[in-house]
Amino acid sequence: MQADELLKQHLLKTISLTDEQFAYVFSHFKPLSFKKGQAIISPGDAVDAEYFVLSGCLKSFYMNDDLKMFILQFAMPNWWASDYNALTYHLKATITVDCVTDAEVLCLSSDDREKLCDELHQFERFFRLRTNKGYVAAHKRLLSFMNNDAQGRYEELLKQYPELYNLVPKQLIAAYLGVSRETLSRLKRNG
Amino acid sequence: MQADELLKQHLLKTISLTDEQFAYVFSHFKPLSFKKGQAIISPGDAVDAEYFVLSGCLKSFYMNDDLKMFILQFAMPNWWASDYNALTYHLKATITVDCVTDAEVLCLSSDDREKLCDELHQFERFFRLRTNKGYVAAHKRLLSFMNNDAQGRYEELLKQYPELYNLVPKQLIAAYLGVSRETLSRLKRNG
Repeated sequence: MQADELLKQHLLKTISLTDEQFAYVFSHFKPLSFKKGQAIISPGDAVDAEYFVLSGCLKSFYMNDDLKMFILQFAMPNWWASDYNALTYHLKATITVDCVTDAEVLCLSSDDREKLCDELHQFERFFRLRTNKGYVAAHKRLLSFMNNDAQGRYEELLKQYPELYNLVPKQLIAAYLGVSRETLSRLKRNG
Repeated sequence: MQADELLKQHLLKTISLTDEQFAYVFSHFKPLSFKKGQAIISPGDAVDAEYFVLSGCLKSFYMNDDLKMFILQFAMPNWWASDYNALTYHLKATITVDCVTDAEVLCLSSDDREKLCDELHQFERFFRLRTNKGYVAAHKRLLSFMNNDAQGRYEELLKQYPELYNLVPKQLIAAYLGVSRETLSRLKRNG
């Protein structure tokens, strides 16, 4: 499927746009291709855009002082990724967003997002509802970490991204769940 | 300060509304008073509203099967609270929202929120930007849990709610941070 058709279907699940409005929206998105392992955002970068995934898989992660990796998010087709803390507060990036596989994305600058939200009420609605879902998912995951419920996180992950297991190395899935690879194997047996 | 003035100042920090628009918005909010300890939302309830805090302090929490309490959020004046998972997906509540102190709130039903978002583009913007901030804060707290950084969570909490320590029993603060009361005392000495 073409990039414009993928984005259109994604937006029309939540809002209504005429063909003309969609063409105008789409003209603000810039297609980019990245290779497996390539970084889209690195710590210290200025962050002024977010990315809609067309194909492939991204991950966003934080690396602590002991070089331990914590995965905040995987982004598969139809998901969005950025360093939202940096993007929202005009700060330098503190996390990395890079490519688990070769990936094609559509890049939307935050200036263009604000312009489109201004011009098209429905576009603003799209971002309200998308962000609300993200907020709810983050709170669910937070409760699961507080409650030390790795099995719950594992099941939630499978529900959100059923195709992830074929795409992503097991150590990355463990880094998302916040468990060791041994614990991950145990969760899979229980599942 | 009167309820309408508090809400008006809160909204005008993010969006612009004429006096007439604000009066219309305000007519959809219902003032409610609660006593210390009283529950506003209990597990199993149908959830069809969110609450803007005028005075006092609410907490939202999850209680696991071992009756251990995990505090998702404190809500002080100018904060909003609900079970956003239940509210978003029309599910029964899984968390409790109750009153740490006597509290006065303004209740906005989700039907009225959607109606106002439909009618007033600026109101939709308000909820997009508010929810985006909540999303970023939840991801920050998530990283802090994954990274086992109780000191970071403690400092973030003080930054977000500097007045909290005078209002809230220490065991509730420990339940928010996900640490024991002993660890909390250690964090305070380091701070």
